[in-house]
Amino acid sequence: MKEILNFIDSNVDSYIEELKDFLKIQSISTLPENKTDMQTAAQFVADKIKQAGIEKVTIYQTEGHPIVYAEWMGAPGKPTVLIYGHYDVQPADPIDLWETSPFEPVIKDGKIYARGATDDKGQMYVHIKSVEAILKVNGTLPVNVKFLIEGEEEIGSPNLYTFLKNNTELLKCDAVLISDTSLWEEGVPTITYGLRGISYMEVEVTGPNRDLHSGTYGGAVPNPVNILADIISKLKDKNGRITIPGFYDDVLKPTKQEKENLKKLKYPEKEFAKSIGIKKSVGEKGYSLLERIWSRPTLDCNGIVGGFTGKGAKTIIPSKASAKISMRLVPNQNPKKIEKLFTKYIKKIAPDYVDVKITSIHGGSPFIAKLNQPIMKVAAKAMASAFGKETVFMREGGSIPIVVDFAEKLKATPVLMGLGLDSENLHSPNEHFNLNHFRLGIISSAYFMNGLANL
Amino acid sequence: MKEILNFIDSNVDSYIEELKDFLKIQSISTLPENKTDMQTAAQFVADKIKQAGIEKVTIYQTEGHPIVYAEWMGAPGKPTVLIYGHYDVQPADPIDLWETSPFEPVIKDGKIYARGATDDKGQMYVHIKSVEAILKVNGTLPVNVKFLIEGEEEIGSPNLYTFLKNNTELLKCDAVLISDTSLWEEGVPTITYGLRGISYMEVEVTGPNRDLHSGTYGGAVPNPVNILADIISKLKDKNGRITIPGFYDDVLKPTKQEKENLKKLKYPEKEFAKSIGIKKSVGEKGYSLLERIWSRPTLDCNGIVGGFTGKGAKTIIPSKASAKISMRLVPNQNPKKIEKLFTKYIKKIAPDYVDVKITSIHGGSPFIAKLNQPIMKVAAKAMASAFGKETVFMREGGSIPIVVDFAEKLKATPVLMGLGLDSENLHSPNEHFNLNHFRLGIISSAYFMNGLANL
Repeated sequence: MKEILNFIDSNVDSYIEELKDFLKIQSISTLPENKTDMQTAAQFVADKIKQAGIEKVTIYQTEGHPIVYAEWMGAPGKPTVLIYGHYDVQPADPIDLWETSPFEPVIKDGKIYARGATDDKGQMYVHIKSVEAILKVNGTLPVNVKFLIEGEEEIGSPNLYTFLKNNTELLKCDAVLISDTSLWEEGVPTITYGLRGISYMEVEVTGPNRDLHSGTYGGAVPNPVNILADIISKLKDKNGRITIPGFYDDVLKPTKQEKENLKKLKYPEKEFAKSIGIKKSVGEKGYSLLERIWSRPTLDCNGIVGGFTGKGAKTIIPSKASAKISMRLVPNQNPKKIEKLFTKYIKKIAPDYVDVKITSIHGGSPFIAKLNQPIMKVAAKAMASAFGKETVFMREGGSIPIVVDFAEKLKATPVLMGLGLDSENLHSPNEHFNLNHFRLGIISSAYFMNGLANL
Repeated sequence: MKEILNFIDSNVDSYIEELKDFLKIQSISTLPENKTDMQTAAQFVADKIKQAGIEKVTIYQTEGHPIVYAEWMGAPGKPTVLIYGHYDVQPADPIDLWETSPFEPVIKDGKIYARGATDDKGQMYVHIKSVEAILKVNGTLPVNVKFLIEGEEEIGSPNLYTFLKNNTELLKCDAVLISDTSLWEEGVPTITYGLRGISYMEVEVTGPNRDLHSGTYGGAVPNPVNILADIISKLKDKNGRITIPGFYDDVLKPTKQEKENLKKLKYPEKEFAKSIGIKKSVGEKGYSLLERIWSRPTLDCNGIVGGFTGKGAKTIIPSKASAKISMRLVPNQNPKKIEKLFTKYIKKIAPDYVDVKITSIHGGSPFIAKLNQPIMKVAAKAMASAFGKETVFMREGGSIPIVVDFAEKLKATPVLMGLGLDSENLHSPNEHFNLNHFRLGIISSAYFMNGLANL
């Protein structure tokens, strides 16, 4: 490894120059005017993988933007790692809030500023460079390596799932290595091992067949807004617990190891509340802030609408009211089962003199990796070696559906080796990426492949 | 009276022809393109009052549409009756649902079809004709008569209150006679003696200072939609009673006479429910449908909005949610007091970790006339004489703010001698007015003035 580390350190400046070129490409997946930029970015990725020393590189066209696939299978009998990442970026607006131009990368105080710097060009690029460094030094890789780099992550990966489903043999692997999440804090090696799932529902209540005059009819007619409010109000008790019968049945209790890990992470509650303008954090009684965000399920109204919503007054009893209600799920809750429990409960508590329509908008499974499995241990050790500190394990409150798909379809272990920071303005103006984390990421990646070979 | 009745019957056909001319004028108060039509309609009213034999007629210009005022004060020592009505009408759209042109009056099956036929040109016109008949027959009137006919009723009478306030001496009277409500049913003489008031509020809840990702933050943040739902849900108990402390303190209990009147009115509950597409009428426990609509206060959400309300899904915890909540009030509730009780209660039940803004949008007092006062008895007897049936007394669930203003500012008794029917499509296509009620209205009006003279 020593030679590889020296090689990386001697070349990291030119890697940063290459990253600059990558960041100059305006690969905004959601904008039609950037369609050719998407092809340019995919070609850039393919070229760099070839330059790293991998010959078999294919650009797959899809109904949307291309998928870059590559493989090096020269280590028979050894594990295979699939590196997933994305070359597309979010739009740059609001442009006037950028201190430097979003597609003209600038380095300041050891950080590179540009759209996509941390999400995900910079993070993804570390793995191309680690592979290159190993191949240049050793002429071979310790494990088999595949790359799967897509261009539609920021628009919900509409074509990736189909590609995954149709190519399970091609993509077969033992570990899926992903750098698209965050470090716990600067300089602290971190692996995200759990994600929440989701069940996103819509509830529509219909009372009278048209909006009615609230004077002429008020006192005699079921009001769908009041009734919807009653329904929503009955979904949680005063301790913030969800009241849907059976909702918590499958919730996995944290292991001893998880609890110990959690104790090590001090979370500044006051700063958290201040940063979003609330007086204090609230939620399910008996759980800490991090537990509530990471390992406990939630229920939130994402939106509500009904009746008159303009300025001033209109004296109506509305005909309809509807709400979007989503639940974040944790292992081992099943979105399909939760959807059924939710529907059954709402039907039970809704009065029989109104019509209630309940629709599932979408669902996604939660994810958790076992901390004591060998691949996770290797990953943790790799990052610890690179960063010179013990690796911390965290969960994430959001959902990354493709991670679950990888785990389910490929029967592989996802390794979320995030290198970003929550403070790096992803999706916002002045996005940046810490170049020390860029360098430590390349080293972590190299350690990981090395460690995996010895499993 | 016999001579007068004969005179009315001999002339009613020409009165109907005049009404047709009146209905041809497109006096839609809300549309700027009908501004000159408003002047034409005001002039029409002024001319017809002059033609009836009243010389002192003035058209008062306002910031909006003109007010027609007239007076005949030739009965010193006798009571004065102020006749209030309006010459403006609602827009005619949707035009394609009209079977005949809205401004080309057509008579079918004893009903005249045109916009404004029942609301309020036809109803108001009866009083001009009754005055004319009495003056033509007797050369004098039994009481003093004033006319106050406005052109902004359909847009909320924005200039009438100021006119009333600035001219209390001019408008001084004992009774205000208004035909702008409905008969209980066809051919049944009816006086509306109670109206509900209103207190219209807006409640806005703010949680975080911006919309947040429901994955990253869900479980730790107060959700304004959920909290607003909780608040709304706590405003009524399971029996449909409003839970605001003190809310019912001033509610006037119905008198024995009212209860007896109510017993006489059979209300078809099933047809009511069917007509608005609900399974059954609902509301405060222990009260009949008519009591709930007429003499009990209510609370209804008129609208609610917060967060994502488009198609599909957006996984946010909204920053804000707001609801319009109005309460219909009954005698002797005071809108200002109710507003305070509402605000105090919401502040009490809202959690302290969100911001709650409570705004009063508008308020109006309820109204009730004592049934046993002489003017009401005269009015009931007048209608009974004309219709040949006992007069029924009803209340109305809606509010007519100007009625309260008349009662308060002029210290006069409003007499709501409605001649329309709820089925006559007011504010809708194919508005019409029963010409038998037109004739009986003229006769009722004549009887009323005659009776008032003998008080």
